Amino acid sequence: MTAVPEFSRAAVLREFKAPLKIEEVPLPRDTEPNAALVKIEMCSICGTDVHLWQGSLSLKVNLPVIIGHEMVGRVVRAGAGVTTDSVGTPLKVGDRVVYTHTSCGGCYFCTTARKPTLCTNRRAYMYENIEESPYLLGGFSQYGYVLPQAGRLRVPDSVPNELASLSSCALRSVMNAFSQIGEIEPTDTVLIQGAGPLGLLATANARVRGAKKIIVIGSPSARLKMAERFGADVCIPVEGATPQERLDAVLAQTEGRGADIVMEFTGVPAAFAEGLALARKGGRYLVVGQLGEASTTMAPSMIVKKNLQVIGSFSGDARSYSLALQFLEKHQHAFPFHEMITGRYKLDEVNTALTRMKNFEEVKPVITVD
Amino acid sequence: MTAVPEFSRAAVLREFKAPLKIEEVPLPRDTEPNAALVKIEMCSICGTDVHLWQGSLSLKVNLPVIIGHEMVGRVVRAGAGVTTDSVGTPLKVGDRVVYTHTSCGGCYFCTTARKPTLCTNRRAYMYENIEESPYLLGGFSQYGYVLPQAGRLRVPDSVPNELASLSSCALRSVMNAFSQIGEIEPTDTVLIQGAGPLGLLATANARVRGAKKIIVIGSPSARLKMAERFGADVCIPVEGATPQERLDAVLAQTEGRGADIVMEFTGVPAAFAEGLALARKGGRYLVVGQLGEASTTMAPSMIVKKNLQVIGSFSGDARSYSLALQFLEKHQHAFPFHEMITGRYKLDEVNTALTRMKNFEEVKPVITVD
Amino acid sequence: MTAVPEFSRAAVLREFKAPLKIEEVPLPRDTEPNAALVKIEMCSICGTDVHLWQGSLSLKVNLPVIIGHEMVGRVVRAGAGVTTDSVGTPLKVGDRVVYTHTSCGGCYFCTTARKPTLCTNRRAYMYENIEESPYLLGGFSQYGYVLPQAGRLRVPDSVPNELASLSSCALRSVMNAFSQIGEIEPTDTVLIQGAGPLGLLATANARVRGAKKIIVIGSPSARLKMAERFGADVCIPVEGATPQERLDAVLAQTEGRGADIVMEFTGVPAAFAEGLALARKGGRYLVVGQLGEASTTMAPSMIVKKNLQVIGSFSGDARSYSLALQFLEKHQHAFPFHEMITGRYKLDEVNTALTRMKNFEEVKPVITVD
Amino acid sequence: MTAVPEFSRAAVLREFKAPLKIEEVPLPRDTEPNAALVKIEMCSICGTDVHLWQGSLSLKVNLPVIIGHEMVGRVVRAGAGVTTDSVGTPLKVGDRVVYTHTSCGGCYFCTTARKPTLCTNRRAYMYENIEESPYLLGGFSQYGYVLPQAGRLRVPDSVPNELASLSSCALRSVMNAFSQIGEIEPTDTVLIQGAGPLGLLATANARVRGAKKIIVIGSPSARLKMAERFGADVCIPVEGATPQERLDAVLAQTEGRGADIVMEFTGVPAAFAEGLALARKGGRYLVVGQLGEASTTMAPSMIVKKNLQVIGSFSGDARSYSLALQFLEKHQHAFPFHEMITGRYKLDEVNTALTRMKNFEEVKPVITVD
Repeated sequence: MTAVPEFSRAAVLREFKAPLKIEEVPLPRDTEPNAALVKIEMCSICGTDVHLWQGSLSLKVNLPVIIGHEMVGRVVRAGAGVTTDSVGTPLKVGDRVVYTHTSCGGCYFCTTARKPTLCTNRRAYMYENIEESPYLLGGFSQYGYVLPQAGRLRVPDSVPNELASLSSCALRSVMNAFSQIGEIEPTDTVLIQGAGPLGLLATANARVRGAKKIIVIGSPSARLKMAERFGADVCIPVEGATPQERLDAVLAQTEGRGADIVMEFTGVPAAFAEGLALARKGGRYLVVGQLGEASTTMAPSMIVKKNLQVIGSFSGDARSYSLALQFLEKHQHAFPFHEMITGRYKLDEVNTALTRMKNFEEVKPVITVD
Repeated sequence: MTAVPEFSRAAVLREFKAPLKIEEVPLPRDTEPNAALVKIEMCSICGTDVHLWQGSLSLKVNLPVIIGHEMVGRVVRAGAGVTTDSVGTPLKVGDRVVYTHTSCGGCYFCTTARKPTLCTNRRAYMYENIEESPYLLGGFSQYGYVLPQAGRLRVPDSVPNELASLSSCALRSVMNAFSQIGEIEPTDTVLIQGAGPLGLLATANARVRGAKKIIVIGSPSARLKMAERFGADVCIPVEGATPQERLDAVLAQTEGRGADIVMEFTGVPAAFAEGLALARKGGRYLVVGQLGEASTTMAPSMIVKKNLQVIGSFSGDARSYSLALQFLEKHQHAFPFHEMITGRYKLDEVNTALTRMKNFEEVKPVITVD
Repeated sequence: MTAVPEFSRAAVLREFKAPLKIEEVPLPRDTEPNAALVKIEMCSICGTDVHLWQGSLSLKVNLPVIIGHEMVGRVVRAGAGVTTDSVGTPLKVGDRVVYTHTSCGGCYFCTTARKPTLCTNRRAYMYENIEESPYLLGGFSQYGYVLPQAGRLRVPDSVPNELASLSSCALRSVMNAFSQIGEIEPTDTVLIQGAGPLGLLATANARVRGAKKIIVIGSPSARLKMAERFGADVCIPVEGATPQERLDAVLAQTEGRGADIVMEFTGVPAAFAEGLALARKGGRYLVVGQLGEASTTMAPSMIVKKNLQVIGSFSGDARSYSLALQFLEKHQHAFPFHEMITGRYKLDEVNTALTRMKNFEEVKPVITVD
Repeated sequence: MTAVPEFSRAAVLREFKAPLKIEEVPLPRDTEPNAALVKIEMCSICGTDVHLWQGSLSLKVNLPVIIGHEMVGRVVRAGAGVTTDSVGTPLKVGDRVVYTHTSCGGCYFCTTARKPTLCTNRRAYMYENIEESPYLLGGFSQYGYVLPQAGRLRVPDSVPNELASLSSCALRSVMNAFSQIGEIEPTDTVLIQGAGPLGLLATANARVRGAKKIIVIGSPSARLKMAERFGADVCIPVEGATPQERLDAVLAQTEGRGADIVMEFTGVPAAFAEGLALARKGGRYLVVGQLGEASTTMAPSMIVKKNLQVIGSFSGDARSYSLALQFLEKHQHAFPFHEMITGRYKLDEVNTALTRMKNFEEVKPVITVD
């Protein structure tokens, strides 16, 4: 293990919409009990990074911050008490990890509600000011700090950084959503709204879990082609078709009933009402991508008359990360995950990468950090 | 048993909004296997009756019809094979019954989806033309016909007609909704939207099931007073308060979190978005009253960020009716159900009763049929 | 459609343990409403057939009867009202069907408990005396009678008789069991106890549903080889190993925890206690094969201290049959189902087939009926 | 707050079956982060205390230990980071708490399996040697130590020590069991096996949760009288009746079907097979009291043919304690909880109290610690 420097080069956001600047941010002097310092090896880019950069998130952000939250790091310092990861796998300096937002373990939502993702005291990466210790709570950085109350999962040796970074946001969100569906029968049709990274990962999941038929509604056409390689049986383009035409297409594929399970990964508010229409009576609708504040119009009677279950799924916890890593460990060669990694950039190129992401020229680009 | 006449006096709707006319409608000549002919003793009035009368339902209705669907009847003829009710209780001529819409038992929704309320071949009362046999598929009538595929439940002797009629629509809908919530912990706060008959019956249910605190949001103030007698701990008036004020009132009652379980019985589309706001993170929202076609505005991100389960509950099946009757049998003296029965009318007074119901001058009036 | 004769050749059991005799049994004169008469094309043999033959079942059987209950027939007469199968698929004379034991739709278990397999008025095939109409309630027969209250499922054209017969008992029992497990995560290890027909079909199911690892415990070694071709990752022989050695082998495969889900298909009482030991703490144990009366010894504390869920699954309903047929339709070429069909016999050879089954010389033999 | 001494008087077990000795045990010098030191005010006695004293537990116990695990204490020292209890309620020196066994939050069972009661690294009170810091891990002591990874719940001011101590073992086990049943319909019959403290607390719970009928099977007759005051509708004595007679009595109370939900709190292995018989087909059986190693005889086919769900429930977590305290806060005056507290003893009288408990002369005695 090489010596750890005193400063970490990191891409800092000081003004919304302005280019990030590569600065030297101090490393925390101490590593608290149960915390860890990691050398970040890779951080992939998520749509949320772009929204944060553009100042379009509804959260209050205390600039300056280090953007990036899908990072894979190698432990260089381990606080007292760190002997295993969050599921009990031995963990030591030199191991690679992905790590979660914090959950305190001692609030109503962590204990009584059994939903650590809703923790009252949650701290999330890339929203905290770099001027306060531990400074390094963002991913586009040489070093990162794993907070004591953050979950951390050892990355299996066979899972490369490019795939592990998927586990730190996109795939763990998908796994968390699937854990809330209940059983999927081998006669169920699963309809995926959205062919972005989450939609593609959900498609692969539905395939592995044995759905009878998988329908993906998305755009553009190249992305739908990719969806087929992730397991879609039927792809329906959003573009050039009305919602009614898409509904007709789904009904034609489902003996006139609609999909048994619909999963939303679009982030487009209007997709919500469409999803309600696409589900069969008595069906289940998992909503995952709706994170903005925008409202939309819908008829609540759809939910009643069709006796639907509509389930919102937010983020993921250590359990979901663990599932995600194991999913990749077993199925990484069954799907073209590498096609999702459309661009590879150095830390110095972060503005180029973010700009291309903003312009929809990327699916899931990664920043390699030396 | 007195002789059965050839005709049944019945309140017939021939033109929307016009007064119903008392006509003589023929009795079906034969009673099919598994069917039954009943002498209707009482039929209570539901808001849907008013909507049908006014022509404001979205369903197509093939006039002329006999309105009324919350009826209690006494079996006067039993078709071949009728020896028990739908839960196996012995049933014979002379017994009182309430009866359900039909479910065929042989469609995808009856068998595979296990949701007989969503039956593809469902036939519902008061929507069928009186000119075709078996003619008597509505409740404001001397006689009624229990279709072979309709559930029918023997009314326990201790349950009077006024309460049994509640079971045929209002209470069975409430029981069906509660069956889809999952467990209610004795630490859960249940919030009821609406203080109409369903809201009041749900309040009594939440009380019996041991909720820690029951909050009712409704109007007018007299109805909220009644809600207290049905078990509400806290009542919040709709009138004279903004949604934000109501939300603040609920948060003040729930340690700032919102209700663990919210149940909607208003029929007002805007109540849907309000219900999402009133539920705590990780909470459950049962939507029951939304039966119209109207749309409303809401932010789908509420469902995702709060990780809500939103469950639509539609109608009820033989199981729900059975639960409803047993609920009344055991708890009829624990709540002032008689207060809900605000008016008692003869069949000849049906237009008066409907008009008062339309003008919100009644909670749950009943028509007594000689 | 050729003319229907007045008698059906059938293998009749008149005395336990004695050879079946091929007799001429009358066809029912009438086909009741909702009933059907079928020309049986094939009937596979189940262990229960052997137990019935040997008189070792705990049920009272009213000899003489026609043995056989896994039959595929072609509709030759359809009672009034027969237009679809039990899931709504159009059905007409000339179509092939498999059919279920009856459920009345009007008892406590059919409606309130929502478990038609537990129907109070259940009538099952091969237990009814041939001297009373409709006579033909067994499978080793040229003709069979589908009772009005029996589920019936149209067999998809692509599914051959040999596979369809599997759906009428073995596979539908497996599908019903899987429907009661809840979700299977792609990180779950599923352990199958038993490598008979049900165990093999369950193995294929666990594979399709994406289990991480499938372990089969069974015998003999040839059957375990077959289990591998049905998707088993690890096979552990029963023979030549103690329960402790088998437990050690399972722990070695599951990071020392035991299997997330255990499923029992052995029929051997001692397997129950072993299954409790093989499940991880917090795991789920589906028990399916235990149909005899024999008792066994176990420590109830296993269930408490490990916080296990133990779920008994009995038989199957129309839903399970439908799932089974669809499973075969989609996955019939993915697994060597034909290997399960170890013997093909004519009706005249039924005693040979049963004897070989009794001697464990067959997996799933079939009787082809001309 | 008075000064904290250097030693705590405590009842120490140095030899199984021999009388406990009151000794001076050192206080831990430091209070670790997230730990707390409490002045124990009361500790009630559980059957397990007697088993430990007698050396009849299957666990290895590293003598000498301080017995007692149902303690209520007042915080006298709070480690760094202690600002709230485990559900987020503010907590400070001077507040009363009950506290749980530890769960690490970082093992497979805490995260992936979501069962902190099954934590791999669990530390339980009264099993740890007093010669190692923090010494004070038992309840019959002036002072006690709340481990950093132990849940701790602030006792509401209105809940007296005598009731709060119930929450630390008996009631939290009952609440945890009820949380695993799923919904209880107001038409369900709940059968409680056992009229000890857990059985009585479960009876009160079933009453609050609105069960239609509660049947308690237990002994002696005085305890069954008490069960009536806790809400039992029907009591069936164990003594003087055969299992078949008890089954007949239950069938007579349940329309011949058996109980919808059976809950076991006896600790007697033979009660397990009896519970399987007492549940109706399709019913649920919660097993809680079976903690010994003894085996019993049962027919696994009962579980299959009746399609039972058998659920083991072990111990409880912070969530269960929180539910227990809130249950007492709301319902303490609705049931004669004080009758359960059959004896009140000083620390010096601990041997008397344990002996009487051993001789079944007490229900739930308490030790008051000055």
